[in-house]
Amino acid sequence: MSRVYNFSAGPAVLPEEVLQEAAKEMLDYRGTGMSVMEMSHRSAAFETIIQDAEKDIRTLLNIPEDYEVLFLQGGASLQFAMIPMNLMKHKKADYILTGQWAKKAWKEAQKYGEAKAAASSEEQNFSCIPDLSELSASGDADYVYICENNTIYGTKFHTLPDTKGIPLVADVSSCFLSEPVDITKYGIMYGGVQKNIGPAGVTIVIIRKDLIREEVLPGTPTMMQYHVHAKAGSLYNTPPAYGIYICGKVFRWLLDQGGLPGIQKKNQKKAALLYEYLDDSRLFSGTAAKKDRSLMNVPFVTGDKDLDARFTAAAAEHGLVNLKGHRSVGGMRASLYNAMPYEGVEALVSFMEKFEKENR
Amino acid sequence: MSRVYNFSAGPAVLPEEVLQEAAKEMLDYRGTGMSVMEMSHRSAAFETIIQDAEKDIRTLLNIPEDYEVLFLQGGASLQFAMIPMNLMKHKKADYILTGQWAKKAWKEAQKYGEAKAAASSEEQNFSCIPDLSELSASGDADYVYICENNTIYGTKFHTLPDTKGIPLVADVSSCFLSEPVDITKYGIMYGGVQKNIGPAGVTIVIIRKDLIREEVLPGTPTMMQYHVHAKAGSLYNTPPAYGIYICGKVFRWLLDQGGLPGIQKKNQKKAALLYEYLDDSRLFSGTAAKKDRSLMNVPFVTGDKDLDARFTAAAAEHGLVNLKGHRSVGGMRASLYNAMPYEGVEALVSFMEKFEKENR
Repeated sequence: MSRVYNFSAGPAVLPEEVLQEAAKEMLDYRGTGMSVMEMSHRSAAFETIIQDAEKDIRTLLNIPEDYEVLFLQGGASLQFAMIPMNLMKHKKADYILTGQWAKKAWKEAQKYGEAKAAASSEEQNFSCIPDLSELSASGDADYVYICENNTIYGTKFHTLPDTKGIPLVADVSSCFLSEPVDITKYGIMYGGVQKNIGPAGVTIVIIRKDLIREEVLPGTPTMMQYHVHAKAGSLYNTPPAYGIYICGKVFRWLLDQGGLPGIQKKNQKKAALLYEYLDDSRLFSGTAAKKDRSLMNVPFVTGDKDLDARFTAAAAEHGLVNLKGHRSVGGMRASLYNAMPYEGVEALVSFMEKFEKENR
Repeated sequence: MSRVYNFSAGPAVLPEEVLQEAAKEMLDYRGTGMSVMEMSHRSAAFETIIQDAEKDIRTLLNIPEDYEVLFLQGGASLQFAMIPMNLMKHKKADYILTGQWAKKAWKEAQKYGEAKAAASSEEQNFSCIPDLSELSASGDADYVYICENNTIYGTKFHTLPDTKGIPLVADVSSCFLSEPVDITKYGIMYGGVQKNIGPAGVTIVIIRKDLIREEVLPGTPTMMQYHVHAKAGSLYNTPPAYGIYICGKVFRWLLDQGGLPGIQKKNQKKAALLYEYLDDSRLFSGTAAKKDRSLMNVPFVTGDKDLDARFTAAAAEHGLVNLKGHRSVGGMRASLYNAMPYEGVEALVSFMEKFEKENR
């Protein structure tokens, strides 16, 4: 077995210790005589798994009692509809457009009410977060929506918008649990787990309890009503149990890393190594505005498409894989999620230095 | 490691060979240097996984080209809304009520149109399939809906209703791939995979192409439109990739068992062993009407609640677990899905014989 350094934007690298434990427990989870995949979701063993997972993510994010933690399915794409269906009581919401995912969420919301583009950096090809100092949230908006970390463009909100008391809804899929946050600033923080937490197929929604309403829009499917899942403790129907089990292992791994302050330090060190090299390089340059740079996703280019392609191919041969950038930015992208070890970034930067010498 | 015989109604037992392979590939899937959990769903390796899975289920069920196979999320519960939202162009459908899951589907459909209860066995506590010889499907119904195998009550449609050309929609969650079927009799055959195929979190929808319409009901979320998933080959957003990978392994395991004719023979032999014992027993008796008995789920009682509880507890001590019946039927239930070996049913019947001798 030889593991690569996997810079995929998602699904993405997971901690090796977690995978090792999962492999060991595959045929017999702790003396139950069965795999977690084979376990009734109503069994005592699985109840412990999901309750421990909830307890541990509450510890990591310091989530107060007036927030629910829901383990759902369907990814961010299903939340794009679920959020307006549950929250749009005045049929109005403000969206800040910082990339394709924010735009998709905004377009979906237009089915259900008046979704305003309150700010956008599309003219800059989403290479920055728009200036929000002058943001005037609609006074009667049901929520203000952001995509906090933009996987494709490598940007992140380092300051949350001042929503003047209107609930902030944030898709944090690609920065989930990467650094400490003040959860009380959010009405909903949600994300697919497949970038920083676990296997695709689990969506975690952390929602302030007063936003969980029974009066949803007419025609909202039962499975898309937050109150249904909240009342049932995420067990209204069979949950994606194996995925939740892996997420739980990752939460414990994060606690072992010193929680979110601990992983933040590691993430800052990893990102600094790559960004500092990029800033000094005469061949490679980062594409995101420096002030808005993401800790997680680092897009960069040489400025020459053929050279980019040669770089990506050569890197893959050296065990540095999935470095191809998204087609809307081009070039390369290195995703440095929690589970990417420092050694992986070191190996990448060494390889870039060597490539630069040979190709400048 | 010691494995139990797991009679859970779902999530449920999986083939041991499949779990062993999955454990072996956990850290390095076939030389890719990563787990399938860590793999981009756009990667060549994952594309092969999902394409092979589709090819193999097409072979198993002999699915013709005019049907799509979709790998979705949300379980049967999300389909309860998705089906009417996509199919109810005349806002009319007929539901045959054979248990709680059929009723849930029927109630959900009432949000979207006129969902008629065309037949019901509720007065018999769903212990049988209602007589459908006189079934008059509404001439203008968009579909007729059944739950083909009723997990809680242990009944199954051994003859499909004659819908007079109206599309038949069947939830087959608990009899999926348990015996050969004529797929061309169905408009939609769908099910959660967590009973007979794989880990919870994947829903397979096999749908006749002419039923895939862009003109869905207003307000239908993008993620709930069959045409969106069909066009994208089930990759509109990140799919539950690891679950699909396990399903694929189970498909290949089924092909090794002689396909659906092969597994049917094994299932018939297992069920016959238990049913014959039940019919002869002076202590235990089956609760489902004989003519409608399921091959997969076998509910039975002693007629004495305390004795039922003692039986279930004693069986568990002997490695025969999850035999407690659903609260709406009481007593016991043995689920004999594809992956339950014949030896498991033998062990169960021996234990029942011994218990009967000691407690009659």
